[in-house]
Amino acid sequence: MQLTLFTDYALRMLMFLGLAGDRLVPIAEIADKFDVSTHYMLKVAQELARLGYIDAIRGRNGGVRLAVTPERIGLGELVRKTEPQASVLDCVDDDQADCAIVGACKLRKVFRDAQRAFHAVLDEYTVADVLAPRRELRQLLQITPSG
Amino acid sequence: MQLTLFTDYALRMLMFLGLAGDRLVPIAEIADKFDVSTHYMLKVAQELARLGYIDAIRGRNGGVRLAVTPERIGLGELVRKTEPQASVLDCVDDDQADCAIVGACKLRKVFRDAQRAFHAVLDEYTVADVLAPRRELRQLLQITPSG
Repeated sequence: MQLTLFTDYALRMLMFLGLAGDRLVPIAEIADKFDVSTHYMLKVAQELARLGYIDAIRGRNGGVRLAVTPERIGLGELVRKTEPQASVLDCVDDDQADCAIVGACKLRKVFRDAQRAFHAVLDEYTVADVLAPRRELRQLLQITPSG
Repeated sequence: MQLTLFTDYALRMLMFLGLAGDRLVPIAEIADKFDVSTHYMLKVAQELARLGYIDAIRGRNGGVRLAVTPERIGLGELVRKTEPQASVLDCVDDDQADCAIVGACKLRKVFRDAQRAFHAVLDEYTVADVLAPRRELRQLLQITPSG
């Protein structure tokens, strides 16, 4: 059971921007600091902008920055939005799932409860909660804060 | 976040065998009743036999049956064994994960706690707990119990 690379990158980008303050950060800089694909980070940025979490400004002096404060980005909500498969098994939230016993199977409720327990923990936190220790994180990412 | 098809098939096979009683069930029968790949169900059976959950008898009159009672197959334990990626993010259980901030990141603990909450729910149940309503499940799978 794994979260997607998409969610992984989204979390890193939002943490980076939460540490960077108000300045516009080139996506290539974030990808470079985490040593990951710029191309894929660009795709993640497009989606995070679409979801309203970041502003993405095009052009030579463009870049990305948080569109909302880190306190307003709940981890549970974020993960529910970035994961294409919200359910750990297809049947969990789909009464029409392709399984002979879907109408009678108690396993579905067990996994639904487990999934909810997972999300309930994430719902206790926002991006702001994971921006500490701020100084150390900034040093590791060589971030000069502004704004 | 999704469980693998492997785990999905493993759960179905163990439920089927729990409903089938002591008789040896051809793997093709289980695959057929769930309308899934016999080839892949065979791979799942091999692994479940290796893990000690089922007996797999080769040959013309062969098949599979539970090697332990359904009460002894904990869902949490099973899922931890069948999922190749136990951690929702690589960094969660790996201090050496390939991320610039792995040493200072609080996100890891949040996801570790969420993952534990997920498993804790599964740990409350065994295969025996999801074999009800037994009669309806047997009807849906056209199982004639024996043993």
